[in-house]
Amino acid sequence: MNIYSDRIDHLRKLMAEEGIDVYYIPMSDCHNSEYVGDHFRCIEFISGFSGSAGHVVVTKEEAWLFADGRYYIQAANQLEGSGIKLMKWGQPDVPEPDVFVQSQAKDKVLGFDGNVVNTNFAKRISKTAKTVRFQRDLVGEIWTDRPEQSFTDIWRMPQEYCGESVESKLRRIRDEIEKMDLGCSNYSYLIASLDDIAWIYNIRANDVPNNPVAYAYAVIEPEANQLLTHGEGYGREWYKRVKAEPVLPDTVPEVVKEKIREKVINPVAKTLSDNVDIEKLKEFVIAQVKKTLYDTIENENIASDDKDIKSAEGEKTEEAKGNAPKAEKGTTCILMDMNRVGYSVFRYFDDRRIKVMHIDDPSTRMKGVKNETEIKCLKEALKRDSAVIIKLMHWVKNQAGKIHLDEMSIDEFLLKKRSEDPLFMEPSFDTIAAYKENGAMMHYEATAQTAKSIEAEGMLLVDSGGQYKDGTTDITRTFILGPVTEEEKKAFTLTAASMLRLLNAKFIEGCRGENVDIMAREPMWQAGWDYKCGTGHGVGHVLNVHEGPHNIRYRIGANGPSAVLEEGMVVTDEPGVYREGQFGVRTENEMLVVPFTETEDGKFLQFENLTFIPIDLDGIDTSYLTEEDKKLLNNYHESVYETMAPYLDDELKLWLKEYTRPI
Amino acid sequence: MNIYSDRIDHLRKLMAEEGIDVYYIPMSDCHNSEYVGDHFRCIEFISGFSGSAGHVVVTKEEAWLFADGRYYIQAANQLEGSGIKLMKWGQPDVPEPDVFVQSQAKDKVLGFDGNVVNTNFAKRISKTAKTVRFQRDLVGEIWTDRPEQSFTDIWRMPQEYCGESVESKLRRIRDEIEKMDLGCSNYSYLIASLDDIAWIYNIRANDVPNNPVAYAYAVIEPEANQLLTHGEGYGREWYKRVKAEPVLPDTVPEVVKEKIREKVINPVAKTLSDNVDIEKLKEFVIAQVKKTLYDTIENENIASDDKDIKSAEGEKTEEAKGNAPKAEKGTTCILMDMNRVGYSVFRYFDDRRIKVMHIDDPSTRMKGVKNETEIKCLKEALKRDSAVIIKLMHWVKNQAGKIHLDEMSIDEFLLKKRSEDPLFMEPSFDTIAAYKENGAMMHYEATAQTAKSIEAEGMLLVDSGGQYKDGTTDITRTFILGPVTEEEKKAFTLTAASMLRLLNAKFIEGCRGENVDIMAREPMWQAGWDYKCGTGHGVGHVLNVHEGPHNIRYRIGANGPSAVLEEGMVVTDEPGVYREGQFGVRTENEMLVVPFTETEDGKFLQFENLTFIPIDLDGIDTSYLTEEDKKLLNNYHESVYETMAPYLDDELKLWLKEYTRPI
Repeated sequence: MNIYSDRIDHLRKLMAEEGIDVYYIPMSDCHNSEYVGDHFRCIEFISGFSGSAGHVVVTKEEAWLFADGRYYIQAANQLEGSGIKLMKWGQPDVPEPDVFVQSQAKDKVLGFDGNVVNTNFAKRISKTAKTVRFQRDLVGEIWTDRPEQSFTDIWRMPQEYCGESVESKLRRIRDEIEKMDLGCSNYSYLIASLDDIAWIYNIRANDVPNNPVAYAYAVIEPEANQLLTHGEGYGREWYKRVKAEPVLPDTVPEVVKEKIREKVINPVAKTLSDNVDIEKLKEFVIAQVKKTLYDTIENENIASDDKDIKSAEGEKTEEAKGNAPKAEKGTTCILMDMNRVGYSVFRYFDDRRIKVMHIDDPSTRMKGVKNETEIKCLKEALKRDSAVIIKLMHWVKNQAGKIHLDEMSIDEFLLKKRSEDPLFMEPSFDTIAAYKENGAMMHYEATAQTAKSIEAEGMLLVDSGGQYKDGTTDITRTFILGPVTEEEKKAFTLTAASMLRLLNAKFIEGCRGENVDIMAREPMWQAGWDYKCGTGHGVGHVLNVHEGPHNIRYRIGANGPSAVLEEGMVVTDEPGVYREGQFGVRTENEMLVVPFTETEDGKFLQFENLTFIPIDLDGIDTSYLTEEDKKLLNNYHESVYETMAPYLDDELKLWLKEYTRPI
Repeated sequence: MNIYSDRIDHLRKLMAEEGIDVYYIPMSDCHNSEYVGDHFRCIEFISGFSGSAGHVVVTKEEAWLFADGRYYIQAANQLEGSGIKLMKWGQPDVPEPDVFVQSQAKDKVLGFDGNVVNTNFAKRISKTAKTVRFQRDLVGEIWTDRPEQSFTDIWRMPQEYCGESVESKLRRIRDEIEKMDLGCSNYSYLIASLDDIAWIYNIRANDVPNNPVAYAYAVIEPEANQLLTHGEGYGREWYKRVKAEPVLPDTVPEVVKEKIREKVINPVAKTLSDNVDIEKLKEFVIAQVKKTLYDTIENENIASDDKDIKSAEGEKTEEAKGNAPKAEKGTTCILMDMNRVGYSVFRYFDDRRIKVMHIDDPSTRMKGVKNETEIKCLKEALKRDSAVIIKLMHWVKNQAGKIHLDEMSIDEFLLKKRSEDPLFMEPSFDTIAAYKENGAMMHYEATAQTAKSIEAEGMLLVDSGGQYKDGTTDITRTFILGPVTEEEKKAFTLTAASMLRLLNAKFIEGCRGENVDIMAREPMWQAGWDYKCGTGHGVGHVLNVHEGPHNIRYRIGANGPSAVLEEGMVVTDEPGVYREGQFGVRTENEMLVVPFTETEDGKFLQFENLTFIPIDLDGIDTSYLTEEDKKLLNNYHESVYETMAPYLDDELKLWLKEYTRPI
């Protein structure tokens, strides 16, 4: 028994008070962000597990944590004494978390905090339950020293970095919604996705570590739009607040109006002078509040909060795509991406019989296709960042075995070198510096206590990235620090071939990541090897290091295939080999989708390389390469030297010449 | 003005009688077969167009034929004087036929023959219409000398060819339906797909040219099953017949019962002695007729036939997959694959408020995975057929320019040589023997009038196949008959590289055709070339030469991705280059999905080659091949010689040695 088992006991008392049989806790925030701030780390508070992804399920008698393969060992350690059982998520005999909740909550009372569970997930886990209670955040009620939600300064992306006005982006989003032909005469489109909002409004902040976004919602209507964010508990309190404060537009006392203005009018709006008329904005917000709150509260019989969720579902919520029935003409709809918007928000509208329809956020695709300005900026940022990694490579290969180095030293070196860049803000994710067998853990993170000492032997895997004011980077290289095994050389060489073959693929317009993934995997598969992750992901522009809607994987996910690869999309190319307890190799470049050629047979695309760092020739065994692979490697290294020489001093230039020599 | 414009006028008179504004005519039968018998060639009767696929739409003033790229030239010729406009299906500015019907029929009365339009397509084209009339086959009413529907002798597949009993197949289908957890306490599963029925019941016939199937329906229930087929207008009249003949199980006179028995009990059932008890079968049929007809007709207010289709849709029909709502517990459902079953059949049940749910026919996947017996048989059939093509290759390369040869001679030679095989039944499709520029037409068919004379120059593309009692074959080779251009050599060589690279791909379990397609296309795409068709399709076992559920394409179709590639699936590998007015190249092998290896990283699959015919070395320019490609070609040719030598006489053996020499 330990502090966490006490907390679970406390949680069970609150569950009993509320009549809840099964309580579900996600690793999420109100925006279904991939990475969450400390305020939202309810799982760590209740279980001690500090990984970046997971699910906790608590019943009267038992409690479980779902952790994926990256965290099996760590989670087992952290759960010790808590009484919480580890579910090895991803193992064939372990159910998916939503299916597990369904089975536990069958014909019982299910509870969760509806603010932080996205609508679609909440609907899925609620399917079998007798009743669902989503109004209370029971973990929050126990968590007395909970960190405040972070609301940092918001800054505007200058036109020379973002290249498109808010006005133009809003126009394109409205056009996309028009094209969907949803059959609503009017709509309020609510956006929760933080990076989408940052992109649309050309704003950035630091509310989530490594992700330069601001906690916010946005509402876009045919003739109006509103960015909603402020400094006081906005994200978590949204649902409660809007419910608690109905406002009369005409008869309400000025003092109450003022309160609304103060609370819902974003301070940042004042800076958005080219897009937002502050008076109109105030009027809009009041009208908005009136429409969605006052009218409905006053005139409708509001469904009780704990009514059977199943009755609310299906009847009023429809998918606005495929063969789903359209809204009736003449209705006003709330549009939202139900994979992003919290269940409480959905229920707020749905309980008031306001029609809610799902749409995929159209900004996700738009954001994925970089414009000329963004491309120009990110190319520069990537070259400067490549120079940092070249310096690291030179330093670590020369110093290993000579001075004391451990895995933490790598992160320190990178932070120091990147910080010399005036445009550097912060790392784009926690640096992975993994020596020898630690490299087999895809998302390994060294700590001062555990950091492995680095010697002049074996392989060091370094996966890191920077948030610069002009671009986001993500780069992995594996360095050969001395003698390596035959197996390690084979793994290193096949990984190089994999990365280069995908980088050099040509493909016809219309292809998706699922079509081209095999270009990277084929050398692995020919050896009977595979890496258990995607080959590539989209990268934001001064935004999240992981972004959609495209990626490079072979499996078609439950939500259907990834987006078609389009000119202007940035995507990583990061094959690897992972051997538990032995070693890990990964080589990762960023690539840009660009035109290749246009012929009578169609328009063809290719990848332009954005990352200019050598592939450590000390790890290459040419017997594993075809003649074609050797040509690709030599051409790549030639371009690395040509591109990077101007960024380096003479000593490094000379060294780079050697490490980009033809083989 | 010609005979076809007269027929269109006649059709318009019938449309006017019935109050129909827009009449739609498909190229289909009651089973949504890919190829249809003469009885169902309504489009040819009404328009003169003799292609294998198309759609006709007729309004009071206008008429259109949709024909795809294979048929643009042919259709334009055949439509001349008919007043029917050609819609070049597949061109960017031409809408899809269903969308076109929607736009024409908006708020109007739409007519079609509900027997021959599958349910899902009928629902789609009906979406915008005011009213839908699907009861009359107006073309059939005009077509006085219409060929009878073909009902040929049915034969049983012996166990040594098919390897699995009907009982076992039925058990597996019922298990699959159980697993779907549809929420019906009872079901009647109706199957319309002819090759699925042939596979399930281990029967074959010759009702559709080249496709050894019998016109039939099948009904599978938890405890019973029924194969419904007979010799008198069954397919077309199904809907009318079941409506016209309600039967009382107890009180009905014996003479009427007898009529039912005679009409619905399949003569073939008598031969299915190991599976069907003839008395039980009779009882079942009567119970079946009672359940679906008498009860409902007697007790329910049947919806009028021309009621608004939209009211019937959506409310009662639900997709039995994804997040679709399940049937209520305790209900009996009719299950059917709505992409196969005719709309009249669907409406028959739906109008009587019998719950109808869609399922993908589970037999399609089962049939796609060949068992050991089928594999053994088809390997033998493919070797014997390879010998035929080798003989053709030897003959045509030697005789071109010496004796008179034209495209028809090729088909004659093939038919003669294949007929020497005692197991040969008929071609598996119309032979494509296309010389020089005719090769650019993917589905060219020579006629006595148009056959091109063959000389000792250029390239000859031959795509042909046989239906043998032990297997179905599909093979393409392009032969070099003399001097060819540089472009032709490049096309021929890249096609060889494409075919061989896919044939030699290794892939992890879980991959689909969409994942591996690029292995064939990459050499083309690197040249800025593409072929405008899939790379491969499934092949039936003594069944249709095209079968699903898998294929090899890069585009993900409107119905979602193709099936995962599984051990035991047969698929073709047929890249090509097509240059209108100049030449066409295609090289096609059949392949079997087999295990490659199993390692700590997973289970891997590969293709086993099934087709042993040289790739004409006279067309290979090694400058377009990588070293790897050369190895693949030499290995392939070595296996061709080793495998085929025993099938050939000494002269041919010697010749084959030369044409399988290493390069």
